Amino acid sequence: MNTKIIRTISEMRKISSNWPTSVGFVPTMGFLHEGHLSLIKTAQKDNETTVVSIYVNPAQFGPQEDLSDYPRDLKKDIELLAELNVGYVFLPDDGEMYPKNFKTWIQVEDITEIMCGIARPTHFKGVTTIVNKLLNIVRPDTIYLGEKDFQQLIVLKTMVRDLNMPCEVKGCPIVRESDGLAMSSRNIYLKGEDRDKALCLYKSLLLAQKLFSEGVQDLELIRSQMEDIIIQNDGVIDYIAFIDAESLKVVDELHKGCRIALAVKISGTRLIDNLQI
Amino acid sequence: MNTKIIRTISEMRKISSNWPTSVGFVPTMGFLHEGHLSLIKTAQKDNETTVVSIYVNPAQFGPQEDLSDYPRDLKKDIELLAELNVGYVFLPDDGEMYPKNFKTWIQVEDITEIMCGIARPTHFKGVTTIVNKLLNIVRPDTIYLGEKDFQQLIVLKTMVRDLNMPCEVKGCPIVRESDGLAMSSRNIYLKGEDRDKALCLYKSLLLAQKLFSEGVQDLELIRSQMEDIIIQNDGVIDYIAFIDAESLKVVDELHKGCRIALAVKISGTRLIDNLQI
Repeated sequence: MNTKIIRTISEMRKISSNWPTSVGFVPTMGFLHEGHLSLIKTAQKDNETTVVSIYVNPAQFGPQEDLSDYPRDLKKDIELLAELNVGYVFLPDDGEMYPKNFKTWIQVEDITEIMCGIARPTHFKGVTTIVNKLLNIVRPDTIYLGEKDFQQLIVLKTMVRDLNMPCEVKGCPIVRESDGLAMSSRNIYLKGEDRDKALCLYKSLLLAQKLFSEGVQDLELIRSQMEDIIIQNDGVIDYIAFIDAESLKVVDELHKGCRIALAVKISGTRLIDNLQI
Repeated sequence: MNTKIIRTISEMRKISSNWPTSVGFVPTMGFLHEGHLSLIKTAQKDNETTVVSIYVNPAQFGPQEDLSDYPRDLKKDIELLAELNVGYVFLPDDGEMYPKNFKTWIQVEDITEIMCGIARPTHFKGVTTIVNKLLNIVRPDTIYLGEKDFQQLIVLKTMVRDLNMPCEVKGCPIVRESDGLAMSSRNIYLKGEDRDKALCLYKSLLLAQKLFSEGVQDLELIRSQMEDIIIQNDGVIDYIAFIDAESLKVVDELHKGCRIALAVKISGTRLIDNLQI
């Protein structure tokens, strides 16, 4: 089957109101990298039909953030999706998604007010609202989300659970560059030596894991050694959080299944990463 | 077919994931009256299957409101629904609808902050969240709502539109007692002469309509004459609003299709009513 490009909600709805087979859905903001492609391949393995959306959602960017600069390459994205033989690509525009008089927002409390929610106080409200809309339009059986945006994954799982949406949420492992940098569309912002410095996120996570495996339980000691690596690389730490992987609650001591998550700015580019202990 | 009583989300979901026919849905808080029954009969006329939910939603009551006193008569409700041959009655409890760790809320901006939203600032957030959940669980083609709660109808239409929910919203006319009092479960609170005094809402609406049909366009004059009727009946006015029926925006002058909506307390019982001009 050829990849079908759909630009309107009404056309997508016509198709989704009558899916004959199981449907997997991967929402993206485009500028696709191996992380996205890995989600898509998993969706294709699990389902007979796969839908990918590309939409740079203005509502999840803060006023000082990079909405206008966010990298875009729609032509290449569509080529990649056609190569993978993706069934449907949903490409709405702002007028479709946020028409005049749009007034409805979805807010997950509590777990959106920590970690990335502190520096980005309106971000998750934008994410939950757009994904809710996309799920209602695409009506998949399963949505596939990357663990790189771990807080986003838990927030969206919570929304789907609380609102009883008829959809499964599947989190998929982080895909990394060969040197360990977590794949992200924003890595394109990293010029020259910043690209190397950006490795400090993953290096600090690996160090934390090593310390834990050696029996170190003092979280302040682990945090301080992580900070050292980041500061040596001119990284500006937004947060380092030791969290329970289900509830996102900060933990007092590490245990298996915990996550360490962090956000760091490298020359103004905000990067996030996380690792399961 | 016998009326089937369903108490869990998982059982309802099993049925709704595979509706073979068109489905109409009437959400209620029980203590059913002719207004509810009229919605149900319309749903039955339009659809092959009808689902009625009965759930007194705590999230739409304010802390000082009548949640614990809200009238309930489940046995009679189920008898009425069985008599009407309703297909499915969904009867969840609080543990089903708001489990521990529930964190997700839907907020329609702007049109929830006027009229009833002033005296009941958290009410519509509770309404939109529960109806969103019920729509995801029941998955009807059409939801039937009464025009008595006119602001609620417009708020829910806005939510369904903005979130692209795969469902039609149908507003149905107010059903009145023979003397004109709009049917409401809360009318049971009206004891003795309060029952007669409560007619002042409808009488004031009829007077406004009469004045408009006679060519009166001065809204302050109309308002003042409505107030006179209400005050003569010991009513305490919460608001009288002249609104556009689509946007709920306050209008400067009445035109055909406008609504007049009001909320009045009679001996502590808060009543609402409205009339299309």
